[in-house]
Amino acid sequence: MHRTLPVASSPVRDLLALTSRPEVISFAGGLPAPELFDQDGLRAAYDLALRDRSVLQYAPTEGNPVLRSLISDRLTARGLPTSDVLITTGSQQALALVATALLEPGAVVAVEEPTYLAALQCFQMAGARIVPVAADAEGMDISALRSVVASSRPSMLYLVPTFANPTGRTLSSSRRAEIAALASEHGFWVVEDDPYSELRYRGSPVAPLASISDRTIYLGSFSKIGAPGMRLGWLRAPASLLRTLTIVKQAADLHTSTVDQAACAAYLTHNDLDAHVARLRAAYGERRSAMVAALPGAFPAGTTWTDPDGGMFVWLRLPGSADSAELLKEALTHDVAFVPGAPFYAVTPDHATLRMSFTSNTPAEIAEGMARLAKVFW
Amino acid sequence: MHRTLPVASSPVRDLLALTSRPEVISFAGGLPAPELFDQDGLRAAYDLALRDRSVLQYAPTEGNPVLRSLISDRLTARGLPTSDVLITTGSQQALALVATALLEPGAVVAVEEPTYLAALQCFQMAGARIVPVAADAEGMDISALRSVVASSRPSMLYLVPTFANPTGRTLSSSRRAEIAALASEHGFWVVEDDPYSELRYRGSPVAPLASISDRTIYLGSFSKIGAPGMRLGWLRAPASLLRTLTIVKQAADLHTSTVDQAACAAYLTHNDLDAHVARLRAAYGERRSAMVAALPGAFPAGTTWTDPDGGMFVWLRLPGSADSAELLKEALTHDVAFVPGAPFYAVTPDHATLRMSFTSNTPAEIAEGMARLAKVFW
Repeated sequence: MHRTLPVASSPVRDLLALTSRPEVISFAGGLPAPELFDQDGLRAAYDLALRDRSVLQYAPTEGNPVLRSLISDRLTARGLPTSDVLITTGSQQALALVATALLEPGAVVAVEEPTYLAALQCFQMAGARIVPVAADAEGMDISALRSVVASSRPSMLYLVPTFANPTGRTLSSSRRAEIAALASEHGFWVVEDDPYSELRYRGSPVAPLASISDRTIYLGSFSKIGAPGMRLGWLRAPASLLRTLTIVKQAADLHTSTVDQAACAAYLTHNDLDAHVARLRAAYGERRSAMVAALPGAFPAGTTWTDPDGGMFVWLRLPGSADSAELLKEALTHDVAFVPGAPFYAVTPDHATLRMSFTSNTPAEIAEGMARLAKVFW
Repeated sequence: MHRTLPVASSPVRDLLALTSRPEVISFAGGLPAPELFDQDGLRAAYDLALRDRSVLQYAPTEGNPVLRSLISDRLTARGLPTSDVLITTGSQQALALVATALLEPGAVVAVEEPTYLAALQCFQMAGARIVPVAADAEGMDISALRSVVASSRPSMLYLVPTFANPTGRTLSSSRRAEIAALASEHGFWVVEDDPYSELRYRGSPVAPLASISDRTIYLGSFSKIGAPGMRLGWLRAPASLLRTLTIVKQAADLHTSTVDQAACAAYLTHNDLDAHVARLRAAYGERRSAMVAALPGAFPAGTTWTDPDGGMFVWLRLPGSADSAELLKEALTHDVAFVPGAPFYAVTPDHATLRMSFTSNTPAEIAEGMARLAKVFW
């Protein structure tokens, strides 16, 4: 009776469970650093919002008008002219809404390989067929995408173009332009999942795909720059599609928490989010450098890794036919953890890959964790 | 490219828009009374919860363990032995998860006619075929259900058995037993949507279907007894199905707001929800009586209505071939509103029906609103 659900659907949950032993230094999660949350500012924002009892009532599906306007203005200021957004219960919900609205069973979704695994789950649950597209240091390979478009006629292309999960890579400007042209020519939708782009530690911003392609659905999130517990994301799309997605959201949860939305609006009104993001960038940039510097001493010769300009992740490949899932078991005996790379592949996993997150540990903890990892490969 | 979406999918939203003019006395919404929210208690609960910065972090999909335990204990104390629940983003999300997990396109869902229209939207969006079952003053007609089961082989039966939306009716104990027997015999799931049962103004509680049938998925909500803006619902189901629904929820929004869940747990720990519900019952019971007493003077002879023991709604049928949607336009010229009944029908609407909510207006406002309605029928 149950709809067929993806078998590999709970690796994130299983992995989060691994990291809960307090003695483990975990590079496995994709968690922001809790000590950097602006707890005082957010607590004051909730208190301010709750002076108005209407924040306890039902609310429009589209979301809090003040919050929508603040987010639209912020996107516009960052170079993405935006007149309106749909507020979602985290950007995970935005992915689910897009899958429900746009994917018929059997529809083809092209994805970068490897990619964010909870996106794969969404597309699989909608009955879509996922077709992977190869990538290199500059992001998705355009000739590989061309041949997938020709052979599989995707109705959607899913990308985390800036500081990708899991690889940390950024799609170059010239490739963005080529993808925009392909989307326009072939009429597929581009889903630009962009939770990380504000977390840049070096180099210059790259314009979002949504700023050069009107076939793009742009997903943003408060989770990495604010606090994920508030479950606040947003979706920018052409107006007619935004209306359709609003109807789909109504059936999904009527609307996102009125309280969380009002608190976020109060926070953005009375605090300097840019200053907070600057603090995050300073701390995370230091952590990134600490991890990258320690990699050569921790992993065996022949290991390769990405060198991300921002975001949360370094992606590694061990030499030869190593199995990172087996190595994780040994790493856990040394009280250190990472994520095996296989679940991030839609089709053919490379078991020698793994993902390391540098955001939720201090440089000192990173040094200790990398020393523990070195023992695994001794 | 868009999946076919139900055409009648936005009547709730359109109708909510009608009620926003401040001079309108609206009986249209299904809103709890904002002046009865325990604003101070909830504000204190958020402040207490936000002393712990972990409420700003990602959290398990299943929900806050303290909250799950408090809700399970409360259900058990009310006569429904419960070992665990899944926390959902309002009980609307629970409906969407159930539809995603259990309904293949073309599956048949049997529903009471008329019924909650956002449930119809969920089932339609999952590609299900909805088959209505007639009802009378005691709720769903069992012989009508038997013939639907025989002819259409539903995989699911959806019910609001206690103080139904839109009719206010309650399914009798004996009929509940017959439905439990039918579900067991024919192997369909019963979805018992129960947001209103604590709002009883007279008579004795009727045991939930879930307490007599292990084929039942039970949905509860904080929206009517606490505050809907927090978007907190819960789902009780057999353990294996609960695991499946947790996987579906992970793809839908990862988890419900950590902040709202922690605040609700703090509220339930430090406040007496039963005492708050008793205050709601006293106020709403008075409003119910005010509305029912005024009906004969407001509506034309030959109008019939339900006489609910609890909940939020009275359901009316005008005599002959009246069209309540046309009458609503005239009612709005007198600054009073109700909901036309047609959208609550899955298949063949009765345009002479309408729904009136008595919860969000005081007895004095109800008297004034009913006097305005009387002018419509002058």
